[in-house]
Amino acid sequence: MSQVCIATYRSYDDRADFHKKALSIAVGLTVGSWTELPEAKKAEMEKHLGKVLSVEVHEPANGAAGERYADIRIAYPDINFSQDIPALLVTVFGKLSMDGRIKLIDLDVSENFASAFPGPRFGLQGVRDLLDVHDRPLLMSIFKSVVGHDLANLQEQFYKQALGGVDLIKDDEILFENPLTPLEKRVEICMEAARKAQEETGQKLLYAVNLTGPTSQLAANARKAVAAGANALLFNVLSYGYDVMHELSKDPEINVPIAAHPALAGAFYPSPHYGIGASLLLGKLMRLAGADLVLFPSPYGSVVMPKEENLAVKDALLSPLHQLRTSFPVPSAGIHPGLVPLILKDFGTDVVVNAGGGIHGHPMGTAAGGHAFRQAIQAALSGTPLLEAAAAEGNEALQAAITAWGIKEA
Amino acid sequence: MSQVCIATYRSYDDRADFHKKALSIAVGLTVGSWTELPEAKKAEMEKHLGKVLSVEVHEPANGAAGERYADIRIAYPDINFSQDIPALLVTVFGKLSMDGRIKLIDLDVSENFASAFPGPRFGLQGVRDLLDVHDRPLLMSIFKSVVGHDLANLQEQFYKQALGGVDLIKDDEILFENPLTPLEKRVEICMEAARKAQEETGQKLLYAVNLTGPTSQLAANARKAVAAGANALLFNVLSYGYDVMHELSKDPEINVPIAAHPALAGAFYPSPHYGIGASLLLGKLMRLAGADLVLFPSPYGSVVMPKEENLAVKDALLSPLHQLRTSFPVPSAGIHPGLVPLILKDFGTDVVVNAGGGIHGHPMGTAAGGHAFRQAIQAALSGTPLLEAAAAEGNEALQAAITAWGIKEA
Repeated sequence: MSQVCIATYRSYDDRADFHKKALSIAVGLTVGSWTELPEAKKAEMEKHLGKVLSVEVHEPANGAAGERYADIRIAYPDINFSQDIPALLVTVFGKLSMDGRIKLIDLDVSENFASAFPGPRFGLQGVRDLLDVHDRPLLMSIFKSVVGHDLANLQEQFYKQALGGVDLIKDDEILFENPLTPLEKRVEICMEAARKAQEETGQKLLYAVNLTGPTSQLAANARKAVAAGANALLFNVLSYGYDVMHELSKDPEINVPIAAHPALAGAFYPSPHYGIGASLLLGKLMRLAGADLVLFPSPYGSVVMPKEENLAVKDALLSPLHQLRTSFPVPSAGIHPGLVPLILKDFGTDVVVNAGGGIHGHPMGTAAGGHAFRQAIQAALSGTPLLEAAAAEGNEALQAAITAWGIKEA
Repeated sequence: MSQVCIATYRSYDDRADFHKKALSIAVGLTVGSWTELPEAKKAEMEKHLGKVLSVEVHEPANGAAGERYADIRIAYPDINFSQDIPALLVTVFGKLSMDGRIKLIDLDVSENFASAFPGPRFGLQGVRDLLDVHDRPLLMSIFKSVVGHDLANLQEQFYKQALGGVDLIKDDEILFENPLTPLEKRVEICMEAARKAQEETGQKLLYAVNLTGPTSQLAANARKAVAAGANALLFNVLSYGYDVMHELSKDPEINVPIAAHPALAGAFYPSPHYGIGASLLLGKLMRLAGADLVLFPSPYGSVVMPKEENLAVKDALLSPLHQLRTSFPVPSAGIHPGLVPLILKDFGTDVVVNAGGGIHGHPMGTAAGGHAFRQAIQAALSGTPLLEAAAAEGNEALQAAITAWGIKEA
């Protein structure tokens, strides 16, 4: 069983001796000092010492200032930290994050470290099982607007979305506990709308209600939501910390899938010089912490993440990672039906197509917005060009969506 | 009582209509849509609507690409979010953080919002009262190295530091629960060393033991530490979340000062284009969350923060902020006795002088390292030039420190 966690950094510096820097990190973030230790002490401390695994220096072709960097990999013995994400992050990037232009790109956690993490309780397959949908991407929709609206309004919005054949509906991440639509009431009236819609559509539906409140009350709030009928949760992981997510996900009484929202992620990942890489921040760490579904910026919309980074997040959620279940990737923002073939080409079929404006803004209304997406998904799966599918009888919703938003070629 | 929280952003864009962008933020992060609402609905939603307060566009003098930006201030009605830091941050910067080059520079929380935050339980004055030191900057030291060391070693390190006349000793932030130096044992042996040293020095001393573990166990661990005799705590706030800090600081059973460590802060503040500004991240939010002392990178050492930003952190900790007590600023890294007059010039006397290598690396040993700092502080307070003070009888420790590290002119 492996017993070291490996951090990969990208460090920018026009002049630094990166090998020396790597060594100073490996020693400084573990035993503190090494060369001056007596030999007997070295033998005793060896098992705590960080090790430089590799240093790949990238000299800029034209010697341009500011573009020289090195990718540095360092192994940290598990024995130095407790088996939790705060301890791991503080060890590998606590002080170091403030030491010049350096970004934490990746973490390969040891089998030993990972053994403390049950990971997603449901995961991709479990979410499919709950919905009984195994042969197509899922469709998620979000409310049009929530702040200032009352229960009746939310119920109506919910019902219209549900009629469109979506598989999941999520709260807006900025909907907190409030007198107009308090948590348990909100769950009750939305699940009532879900049941009513199910009589029409014959289709199951998960409602991810936003879990908010003081940290120490989150588990209790989650249990209240579940008791009121919630069959999923939405959680702003980065505003509370990965460890809170981890504790919620392994709480046996919170037996519903948890969707991780990426709120605040942009404070970490976009700079090339600072922060934490997206595939670690929104991919590996979310999965380790137990997110069953993970929302992240799509490469298609206004809130953009470069496609390479985007696919790296997806890979971190779906690739083998010790004993952990996979998490459902939910690329979000700017999604309309004309993008569906491209989404499936980029992400495969194990993806949640997530739309807001692309559903509520549909010319024929919200329910038709959902239908248009389902029709686009069906077409993409069967290899039928969207234009052809849109012309088919019964696919008027898709036709109208394409007229409104166009098609982006896959 | 004010009822809106005001966010200040810096947004970079070579072409954007920043006024339009500001309006879209103010609407998008509150009611979602506005112009298309019927008038009756507008009247009802008005109280939830974000308002643009100001947009200051900075056109680059030479039209240089990438340098055009605007400072945008937006008021968010308190009614939209619960009175906790996660809700506030998710509202003002959740989704927005991912929307291009934009940095959250500041937050002016309303009197109403702040009323939910008792803030630092002790604060600057309370820490002075505990130590009974009112007429000089405090002196803090950190262990030389901790990982892999046993209780006897830590006790010896502690005793030597304490003999030097330091006021506070803090754990290393990478010391987690471990079999060699478990929390309660560590507190017991260090506090024993503190008592022993106090017999020599006649001086009180706070030991900030590192509070770690699963989030749900932190309060219990803190109580255990206090029961074992700990008279202060160190906490890696950013790895757990501000709300966890807030809950710990208002727990009546955790009645000791909490020092906030800035671990991971470099993932947020250094980029001009992304993240959260240092004075908000390490200043205002730490104080709101209840940190009695706040460590942050000094402008003097290897882990550098520009001095302007540095002083902005200090100001956020010390300036009037609703009903909140002030927090002790602890600029850290690269501090030696020759810097003391400069530190006092930059920070005034309400500062904690915090040193590691500048104490342990003293040519005459650890205790002399502390003495040299105390002598430097005494000299700076009395307006005596360091060189002159170092030549005085009894100040050999200061002399040796200056020989080793020099003096940086104030």
